[in-house]
Amino acid sequence: MRMVDLLTKKRDNQELTPAELDWLIQAYVAGDVPDYQMSAWLMATYFTGMTAAEQSALAMAMLHSGDVLDLSDIPGIKVDKHSTGGVGDKVSLPLAPLVASLGVPVPMISGRGLGHTGGTLDKLESIPGFRVDLSEAEFRAQVKEIHQAIVSASGDLAPADRKLYALRDVTGTVESIPLIASSIMSKKLASGTNALVFDVKVGNGAFMQTQAQASKLAQALLAISQAAGVRAVALLTGMDQPLGITIGNSLEVAEAIAILHNRGPQDVRQLTIAEAAHMLVLGGKTNSLEVATGMAEDALRDGRAWRAFKQLVAAQGGDVRVLDAPQTLPKAAYQIPVRAKSAGVVTAIDTRALGVAVMQLGGGRAKQGDALDHAVGLVMHKKLGTPVAVGDTLATLHANQPDPAAQVAQVAAAFTIGATAPTPQPLIRQVLRQD
Amino acid sequence: MRMVDLLTKKRDNQELTPAELDWLIQAYVAGDVPDYQMSAWLMATYFTGMTAAEQSALAMAMLHSGDVLDLSDIPGIKVDKHSTGGVGDKVSLPLAPLVASLGVPVPMISGRGLGHTGGTLDKLESIPGFRVDLSEAEFRAQVKEIHQAIVSASGDLAPADRKLYALRDVTGTVESIPLIASSIMSKKLASGTNALVFDVKVGNGAFMQTQAQASKLAQALLAISQAAGVRAVALLTGMDQPLGITIGNSLEVAEAIAILHNRGPQDVRQLTIAEAAHMLVLGGKTNSLEVATGMAEDALRDGRAWRAFKQLVAAQGGDVRVLDAPQTLPKAAYQIPVRAKSAGVVTAIDTRALGVAVMQLGGGRAKQGDALDHAVGLVMHKKLGTPVAVGDTLATLHANQPDPAAQVAQVAAAFTIGATAPTPQPLIRQVLRQD
Repeated sequence: MRMVDLLTKKRDNQELTPAELDWLIQAYVAGDVPDYQMSAWLMATYFTGMTAAEQSALAMAMLHSGDVLDLSDIPGIKVDKHSTGGVGDKVSLPLAPLVASLGVPVPMISGRGLGHTGGTLDKLESIPGFRVDLSEAEFRAQVKEIHQAIVSASGDLAPADRKLYALRDVTGTVESIPLIASSIMSKKLASGTNALVFDVKVGNGAFMQTQAQASKLAQALLAISQAAGVRAVALLTGMDQPLGITIGNSLEVAEAIAILHNRGPQDVRQLTIAEAAHMLVLGGKTNSLEVATGMAEDALRDGRAWRAFKQLVAAQGGDVRVLDAPQTLPKAAYQIPVRAKSAGVVTAIDTRALGVAVMQLGGGRAKQGDALDHAVGLVMHKKLGTPVAVGDTLATLHANQPDPAAQVAQVAAAFTIGATAPTPQPLIRQVLRQD
Repeated sequence: MRMVDLLTKKRDNQELTPAELDWLIQAYVAGDVPDYQMSAWLMATYFTGMTAAEQSALAMAMLHSGDVLDLSDIPGIKVDKHSTGGVGDKVSLPLAPLVASLGVPVPMISGRGLGHTGGTLDKLESIPGFRVDLSEAEFRAQVKEIHQAIVSASGDLAPADRKLYALRDVTGTVESIPLIASSIMSKKLASGTNALVFDVKVGNGAFMQTQAQASKLAQALLAISQAAGVRAVALLTGMDQPLGITIGNSLEVAEAIAILHNRGPQDVRQLTIAEAAHMLVLGGKTNSLEVATGMAEDALRDGRAWRAFKQLVAAQGGDVRVLDAPQTLPKAAYQIPVRAKSAGVVTAIDTRALGVAVMQLGGGRAKQGDALDHAVGLVMHKKLGTPVAVGDTLATLHANQPDPAAQVAQVAAAFTIGATAPTPQPLIRQVLRQD
């Protein structure tokens, strides 16, 4: 095969065969296809898109560029979840132990924050000693023993995705739904999971800004899963305001702990229970989503989920004592209130701007590999539809600098205060299933 | 500036400023923008196109990536011509001396054949000793003295185009009208010419297969010329059959000699005179195209054009004796007739296939840098609309192998013989002028 032929074929909107896509990925990883041809191919794909068959074949080719874990010796249907990334989304932290406490193994390969979005691994690393880089043997043993592990993708999983993502990042080809979907799936399927719940975020704090885009991505994820023999469900969930009341790594761990104590913000609790219920159904614990919801609520109420979280943290080397004393988590030196300058009701929140403000305080990364400060972040005092008086605190910044004027201004500007409360939108907009 | 921003801007169909395009080209030539970003940008341009302002700015940026000759010390309005490439197009050979013989300086920077198309430089090199790589000083001195020179672009002219073309060639981004137009113009303007006649080929032997595409390219060439202060005219001319009766380097030189002796095929003669007339008008010799046509006809008839051609060949080191004895030009060992298997009239000719057959005989290049055989080629015996009897010779291959079976079959298949003669199309389809 010649790369220039695959390039013109894609450019001219003809479907590539699985064999062609497989060759493409293998030759790229081997260095036989140079970056300058791959980037042109990525841009052609950005414009012409991909058929369902192409998406699946690309994801499979990327998956098989590296190791694929085989967890079939571990009893039970393994179920993982994936979120497409939002602001304040700490659901994975209570979710994995909650589902594991009910006997469904959760082999979770998770990611780090980038840009305005947070990442589960960064949040967990707020807990002193927590290790996310388990070896394959450790990962496997832990899933067998305590039914859960949350780890980073090792260098041996889907190396094609790492190389491709780095190229997409500098060539304007990140924002392509088929490329996003195959990137996600090449990593998710490498964990050896049998089923998946997707949380596809939609709104001004998400990568997908419209329901149409989010739905397209969800369908791509479901179709690739199906082609790989993995059962899956996708929830489209709102990201027009942060999830819960905290943004920032330590702050979000504390909020996750509250959820695991059967407290915490209602939206985080609702989404945790909903995702858990779908995972329990996929995991074969019941056929009824209602029954599964009751099981999840019970496990939060009676402390099973909380104990499972402590097991998880202990197994991965984290200091369990801070879990019982969340005030000992890394804490920022300064708490700076951001106050309302006008009265009314919160009609809109620029969620992305809040994520960017926290990133700029040091809580996130502008680019991969940047160091971050687990202590900094933001606490929301007013959310969509809440009445506001002049001088009310809209949010509190947690910073390690006394006067982060730019971020204070940015957070203040992120709140739109108007006369009429917006019509409340359901948190879970839509549930998509496989055929 | 950051390349990734220019990339997403182009991808999102926003207009780049001249300063941005200038930076892009400078940074690319300097190696500060890597190939993998440039190729993604080229593919984005393939899909989103360019505004007239962008095309001109890109051409200027590429032009100024290298030396630009200043011929202002040479008296007269300098006029050059450019053909977008066809099969059997030897017009430049009689054209330059014809126009020069009438006192208009022709500083012609020409190209080599690629793929199915021939190139003026290759044809001239059929003449033993002919040098196309004159130094700038030689070029300048020759244009001053004998009003004409036909040379290759030196490495110092538009280096950005050379680097970009090599990248386009391997990334599926050749076939983009704005990129084609700016590539042509960056080289053409570097010669220091004041005016240009474009011959934009249209048909199955041309890069532009439809009149709409050809017209778009012609308009781009005219607009860029105008922005550069260069007066120009574009002829759209038919390329649904070879021009004249020969394809192949030596054979075409012999045909050009016939034209310069006021003989030769009518279509080559017509196009040579038409292009010459436009060049004479642009060169300020007359305002009347009719008068200019008469001047060109006279110079062919009375031998001035022929003597000017001998001057050109002598000045560039060519052996003038072969001009008076064209049978001494390189000659292929075998002449192989291709015969008609059915009777009727020639209704279509796959012109590109004929060009490819000659290339495969060794008369052209599959890729830049390939060596070629000046002797081989093809002589047409039947053209569009000509009656054919079974066994008639359609064409004669000139080969240096006794049995080029594949090419014989290919040439035979290139002729469609039907019942009804096609409606004759005018050779010159349209003349486009600047505003």
